[in-house]
Amino acid sequence: MFDHTRRVAMAVAYDGSCFHGWQMQHNATTVQGKIEDALEAILHRPVRVHGSGRTDAGVHALNQIAHCDLPKAQDLHKLRGGLNALAAPAVAVKKIVEVPAAFHARHSAVGKTYRYHIYNRAYPPVLAPRRCWWVKAPLDDEAMRLAAEQLLGTQDFSSFRAAECTAKSPIRTLSRIELAIGNWPDGTLMIEMEASGFLQHMARIVTGTLVAVGLGRLAPEALPAILAARRREAAAATAPGHGLHLVRVAYDLDIYPQLRALKD
Amino acid sequence: MFDHTRRVAMAVAYDGSCFHGWQMQHNATTVQGKIEDALEAILHRPVRVHGSGRTDAGVHALNQIAHCDLPKAQDLHKLRGGLNALAAPAVAVKKIVEVPAAFHARHSAVGKTYRYHIYNRAYPPVLAPRRCWWVKAPLDDEAMRLAAEQLLGTQDFSSFRAAECTAKSPIRTLSRIELAIGNWPDGTLMIEMEASGFLQHMARIVTGTLVAVGLGRLAPEALPAILAARRREAAAATAPGHGLHLVRVAYDLDIYPQLRALKD
Repeated sequence: MFDHTRRVAMAVAYDGSCFHGWQMQHNATTVQGKIEDALEAILHRPVRVHGSGRTDAGVHALNQIAHCDLPKAQDLHKLRGGLNALAAPAVAVKKIVEVPAAFHARHSAVGKTYRYHIYNRAYPPVLAPRRCWWVKAPLDDEAMRLAAEQLLGTQDFSSFRAAECTAKSPIRTLSRIELAIGNWPDGTLMIEMEASGFLQHMARIVTGTLVAVGLGRLAPEALPAILAARRREAAAATAPGHGLHLVRVAYDLDIYPQLRALKD
Repeated sequence: MFDHTRRVAMAVAYDGSCFHGWQMQHNATTVQGKIEDALEAILHRPVRVHGSGRTDAGVHALNQIAHCDLPKAQDLHKLRGGLNALAAPAVAVKKIVEVPAAFHARHSAVGKTYRYHIYNRAYPPVLAPRRCWWVKAPLDDEAMRLAAEQLLGTQDFSSFRAAECTAKSPIRTLSRIELAIGNWPDGTLMIEMEASGFLQHMARIVTGTLVAVGLGRLAPEALPAILAARRREAAAATAPGHGLHLVRVAYDLDIYPQLRALKD
C-alpha cells in the first residue's frame, strides 16, 4: 500500500493460451503475475492486483475486471500505455478508472457472463485453433437448446463443479443460457451463459454435458436427473479450457457508476 | 498427370501468418507447397495444385479455391482426412468435389470477395493479433464509407496496384464495398470488397487509402482524383497483409453446378 493511494478498477483482455490461468502461481506465467510485474516495473514497488475470480489455464477473457491501489499522482492514461507496452502481446489493459475504496473486483461482483466456442466441422478451425473446441461429429443444436433450458434458474450445481471446488455453497442462479452461431471462424457454435457466479469448471462441465446431448449420448430430458444427482460423475466430461471466454463481469452500477467507463 | 485422372476442386482455409503466401517459392513455406507435399505423401507422386490466385504473405483465406488432377480411384473423403492430418495445423482442406476437366480455379473465376479487419482501439487486439490491423487513432467510419462508395463500378485501378503488378489491364469492376462492425475481437471494423478480380495489393491499397480518409489525412472527395491520377503514388500506403482475408471466389454455377458442394 502507498501512503496516499486511490483504488482503481481495470478491464483486461487476454489470450489464455499464453498463461497458466489468471491467478499467481509459483513458477508459472499467469495474467495476474504479468500485470503485477508490469506495475512494479512502472511504479518501482510491488502492487497486488485482485481479479474478479480465477480463470483456468487456456481460458480467455474479453473483459476480466481487476482492482488495485495506486499512488494518487499516477496518471491513469499514461499508466495504461505503459502497462500495454510491458504486458504485450497477450494481455491488454483496455481501460482503467478510479473507484471508491469499498470496491472489490471479486466481492462486489454480482454476476458473470461466459461464452464457449465450439467449431463443429469435419475440418479443423485453422484460423482460431486456440479459441474454440473442435468437435468433428455433427451436433444436434436443437437438442442442446432443450437441455440448456433445464439448467436455468436457481439450482444446486454440485454435478457441475470440479471435485476440488472449494466454494461453500453449490447453489448458483443461471439467468441466461443461449446458443447462437458466430462467424469466427464461420459457423462457430457459441454457448453464452450468464449467472450470479460460476463454480469451478462449471461453464466447462455445462458445455461438455450439452455437447454430449448434441452428440446423442445423453437425452435433453436427462438434465433434471443429472442436477438432482448432485455428483460430478452424473454430468459429462469437462470441455477444454481453450474454448472458453470470460465475456463480462457484472457489478451494481447504482453503487459503482464509475464502472460504466470500463465498458467497450 | 495420371493415366486415368479426374479433376477436383477444393475449398481451403489457412492462417496466412504461417506462410509466405499461397504460391510456391524456392526455400519458403507456402500454402500451395504444403498441400502439394501432403498430396505427394499420400499419392506417392507429385501433383500440381492450381489456386484461384496468389495471396500475399500474411494474408488469410476462409475459402481459397484450388484444383488438381487425381487418380480416378482416389476416395475423396479419405483424401480430405489425410490432407488435413498432414497439412495441420495452419491449413484445412474443407471440401473436395469432382469437377469437369474444363474447370480451372484461376481461369474460371468470375469474382472474388476480400474482407479486411481493422482493430480501432487504443489498446492492442490480444485475442487476434495476426488477424487484424491495429489502428490506434480513432477512425471516422462515415468518411470512410463516403470514400469507399466512389470506388464502385468499372474503373482503372492503376493507382491501387503494386508497382510490380503484372496484370495486363488495370480495369476492374468493384461491385460491392461495405463497412461493418464485427465481433472478433469486439468492435472490429471490417471492409468487405467484391470485385471481378483484384490487382496485386489492390485490396490492401484500397484499405490503406480508406484508413487515411478515416484518420482525416485525405478527404473522401479526393478519391475520384486519386483514381484519375492512375499512379500508385496518388493513393495512400498499403495496409499490412495480416488484416486481409480471402472470403470467397465466385464461379458461374450454371456452368459448374458441382461447386455448390464446396459452400460452407
